[in-house]
Amino acid sequence: PAKLKSLKQRWNVRPSEMSKKTLNPIRAIVDGMKLTPNPEKPMIALSIGDPTVFGNLPTDDTVLQAMKEAIDSHKYNGYAPSVGYQKSREAVANFYSCPEAPLEGKDVILASGCSQAIELAISVLCNPGDNILVPRPGFSLYKTLAVSMGIQVKHYNLLPEKSWEIDLQHLESLIDDKTACLIVNNPSNPCGSVFSREHQHKILSVASRNCIPILADEIYGDMVFPGCDFQHLAPLSSDVPILSCGGLAKRWLVPGWRMGWILIHDRNDIFGTGIREGLVKLSQRILGPCTVVQGALESILNDTPPEFYQGTISFLKSNSEICYSELSTVPGLNPVMPAGAMYIMVGIEMEHFPDFQNDVEFTERLVTEQSVFCLPATAFEYPNFFRIVVTVPEEMMIEACIRIREFCARHYRPRSQDSHELDQ
Amino acid sequence: PAKLKSLKQRWNVRPSEMSKKTLNPIRAIVDGMKLTPNPEKPMIALSIGDPTVFGNLPTDDTVLQAMKEAIDSHKYNGYAPSVGYQKSREAVANFYSCPEAPLEGKDVILASGCSQAIELAISVLCNPGDNILVPRPGFSLYKTLAVSMGIQVKHYNLLPEKSWEIDLQHLESLIDDKTACLIVNNPSNPCGSVFSREHQHKILSVASRNCIPILADEIYGDMVFPGCDFQHLAPLSSDVPILSCGGLAKRWLVPGWRMGWILIHDRNDIFGTGIREGLVKLSQRILGPCTVVQGALESILNDTPPEFYQGTISFLKSNSEICYSELSTVPGLNPVMPAGAMYIMVGIEMEHFPDFQNDVEFTERLVTEQSVFCLPATAFEYPNFFRIVVTVPEEMMIEACIRIREFCARHYRPRSQDSHELDQ
Ligand SMILES: Cc1ncc(COP(=O)(O)O)c(C=O)c1O
Ligand SMILES: Cc1ncc(COP(=O)(O)O)c(C=O)c1O
Repeated sequence: PAKLKSLKQRWNVRPSEMSKKTLNPIRAIVDGMKLTPNPEKPMIALSIGDPTVFGNLPTDDTVLQAMKEAIDSHKYNGYAPSVGYQKSREAVANFYSCPEAPLEGKDVILASGCSQAIELAISVLCNPGDNILVPRPGFSLYKTLAVSMGIQVKHYNLLPEKSWEIDLQHLESLIDDKTACLIVNNPSNPCGSVFSREHQHKILSVASRNCIPILADEIYGDMVFPGCDFQHLAPLSSDVPILSCGGLAKRWLVPGWRMGWILIHDRNDIFGTGIREGLVKLSQRILGPCTVVQGALESILNDTPPEFYQGTISFLKSNSEICYSELSTVPGLNPVMPAGAMYIMVGIEMEHFPDFQNDVEFTERLVTEQSVFCLPATAFEYPNFFRIVVTVPEEMMIEACIRIREFCARHYRPRSQDSHELDQ
Repeated sequence: PAKLKSLKQRWNVRPSEMSKKTLNPIRAIVDGMKLTPNPEKPMIALSIGDPTVFGNLPTDDTVLQAMKEAIDSHKYNGYAPSVGYQKSREAVANFYSCPEAPLEGKDVILASGCSQAIELAISVLCNPGDNILVPRPGFSLYKTLAVSMGIQVKHYNLLPEKSWEIDLQHLESLIDDKTACLIVNNPSNPCGSVFSREHQHKILSVASRNCIPILADEIYGDMVFPGCDFQHLAPLSSDVPILSCGGLAKRWLVPGWRMGWILIHDRNDIFGTGIREGLVKLSQRILGPCTVVQGALESILNDTPPEFYQGTISFLKSNSEICYSELSTVPGLNPVMPAGAMYIMVGIEMEHFPDFQNDVEFTERLVTEQSVFCLPATAFEYPNFFRIVVTVPEEMMIEACIRIREFCARHYRPRSQDSHELDQ
C-alpha cells in the first residue's frame, strides 16, 4: 500500500472542482440516513418522484405505439439537428401555442429531459458570480446546477398558509444587480400547489419592474385537479421574457425517455437573437434527445386521448384526498392539500415529537418502525416537513397513512416541553 | 424601434460568457461558406458524419427489434439511475471486458451519446486553467467543450506521412504541470487511421512517464478494415488510468439514439473513488440516456450478428478504396488511405491551385461548380486538406470522384508560382 500510495501521489489525478461542487442534496441526505425497514412490514416508498415504479400508472398505448412506428419508419436513426427535428419542434410549438403567446418551431429547443432544458436555460442566462432566485421549498436541481456553475442561489419563501404562494415581498427584497434569473416552478414539486392567475400576474409584475427574465419550470403543467385552473405563465405577460421548461416525463408518464424542451417566449424581443443563438450553441455540446422519441413526439402530443390525461389526474386527486383527509386528523401533522402535480407536503409539529430532532430523524424512524419512507423536506431546504408522493397504488396509500398515524400516535407528546423536562 | 431599443437596454439580458465561448468550428466555417450548388448537377454531400442519411447503411433488424421489445416490456419508462441501469452497464462491461483489462458494471457510466461521455470525462478530470492535449487534425468537440469550460487546448500533431501516427516528441513537448488529460482518438475522425499496437504502447509510455491520464475516444472502435488489427488502448497499459468513451452511434449505425458510455480503466487505483464519484455526481445533472435504448442495450450488444458488422466494414473499405484509387491519380491531390472509421483525408497541393487561397475556398468552389461538398479540414484545425465521408452509396462516391477530378483538372496549374506571377 505504501508503494501504491506514492504512485497515486505521483499521478495526482483528482476530481475537478466542478464535480466536487455538483451536490445533490437529496442523495446527500438520503445516503446519510439509516434506512432499515421493519422486517415485519413490507416497505412502502412514498419518496420517489417516478410515477411508473408501481405499474399502476402506465403511459398510454398511443404513446408506445408512436414509438414503435417511429422505429419501424427507419427515419429516426440518424442525427437530428442539436435543437431537435424541425417537425418535432413544430409539434411542440403547436401544442403549446395560444393567441396570447404564439409559438413557432423556432421557439422550441428540444433537450434531454426537462433537466437538460433547465441546465441550458440557466447556462445561457447566467454567468459565474450572478445569482438566481429559486423557491423554498423547491426542486433541488436548480441549486445543484447553479452551484456547480459558480452561480449563487437565493431562496425566496413559499407560504404554506397561502397554499404555497410566493412571499412576493421577500422575493423582491432578494433582487440585486447580479440577479440574472427568477425560477418559478408551477405546479410545484414538492408542494403540489398551483398558482392562481392573479398570483402569477403579481409574480410577473415583480419580474417586469426589476427587469428579471423568468425560467418557468412547467414540467407539471396541466397536471391539476378538476376545478383548478392551470395557466401557463407566458400568456399572462406582455413584456417579461420567459424560458418555459417542460417535457414528456410527468404528464405522459415516461420520465426515463429523457424528452424535454424549452419554449422561448420573447414577444418584445428582449432575449433577441443572442439568447436564441446561445441556446443553439449550448445544445451542440451533446446533441439533443433520442431521435426515436423525437420522431414519436408529434403523434404523442396530438393523438394521446384526453381520457388518458383525465385518468391520471383523477387518480392523483383521489389519492391526494385520501392522504390529506387521513393525515389531517393525525395530531401533530399538518398536511397542505395540493391542487396538482404528484406531491403533498406535510408539516410536522416538531415540538410534539420530542423523540426526534428534525424531519430527517422523524422520517428515518418512520422507516425503522413502520417501513414507510417519505422524503424529509430538508431535501427541499424546508425543515420540519416531509413530502409524500401520491402516485402509489391506492391500497398502499391507505396502508401508509394508517402506519403514519400509528407512528405519530406512539411518539406524540401533547405538551412536549413538560414531558421533555420530565425526561431529564 | 427607439423605444424598443431602450426597453432592451433596460432589461439587459445577455447570453452568458459560457454560451459565447461554446464555439463549433464546423458550424462557424460551414455557415461562413457560400454553398450554392451548380443547378445542372445534383448535390452530393460528402460532408456529413452521419452514416444513415442515404439509407444505404441501415442498422440491423436485431437492433430495431430489441428496441420494440424494450417498449413492449413496459419496463423501461421510468427513471433509471443517472449512470444507467445496472443491467445495461453490465452488458457493456461484459461486451468490452478482456483478461488484460477486466470490466464490471460499476466501471461503466452510460451517457447521452459519446458526446456527453466526453463532456463528463473532461468535466471530471479538468479544472479551468488546466490544459488538455488533443490531436491535430482532430474531432472538433474536444476543443468546443474544453474552451467553453475555460480549459486550454494544446494540439499535438498527427503525421500524414506516417498514416497519421502521433508525433510523439511534439506531444511530449506540450506537457506541463497544468496538463490534466491526453485525448487519444483511435480510429480517428477525420483521418480514418488506426494505430498499431506498438504505436499505442509508445503513447502509453508518454502518458505514464508524465503521469497524464488518458481520455480514449474509441467511438469507431472495431470499425477497421480486414487485415488491420484494432486494439483498445486500455488493455495495453499496466498503469495509465484511462477513460474510454464509446457508444452505439457509429458501429451500430444509430447516432440519433444518443447512447454513449465511459469505461473506467483504473487497475492501479489512480483515479480512486474520487473520479468515480465525480462522474456519478456529474451524471445527476441531466440523468443519463433514454431508458428504452438502455433496455435494448443488452440485446443490441449480444444478439447483433457478426455479418452486420462485417457488412458495414466491407462497404466502408470498398468505398474507401474506390475513393482513394480515384483521387490518388488526380494531379494536385494526395489522399491518405484510411484503415478504418468512415473518413478519408485528402491533401491539396495548394501551390498548384492558385485560384484558391485555402481549403475553404477550394471546397466552396467545388460546390459551386460541381455540387460536391467536402468539409475543409480547417474545421479540424488542419488547413490544405479536405475530409470525405465514405458512407455514401457507391454510385455517388464514384460520381463525386469524377467531378472532383474534373474540378481539379480545370484549376490545376503545373507551375503555380510562375502563373501566379503572370497574374499580377
Ligand atoms: C419541478 C421539476 N422540474 C424538472 C424535473 C426534471 O424532469 P426530467 O425528468 O424531464 O428531467 C423534475 C423531476 O422530478 C421536477 O420535479
Ligand atoms: C471522434 C468522435 N467522437 C465522438 C463523436 C460523438 O458521438 P455521439 O454521436 O455518440 O455523441 C463523434 C461523432 O461524430 C466522433 O467522430
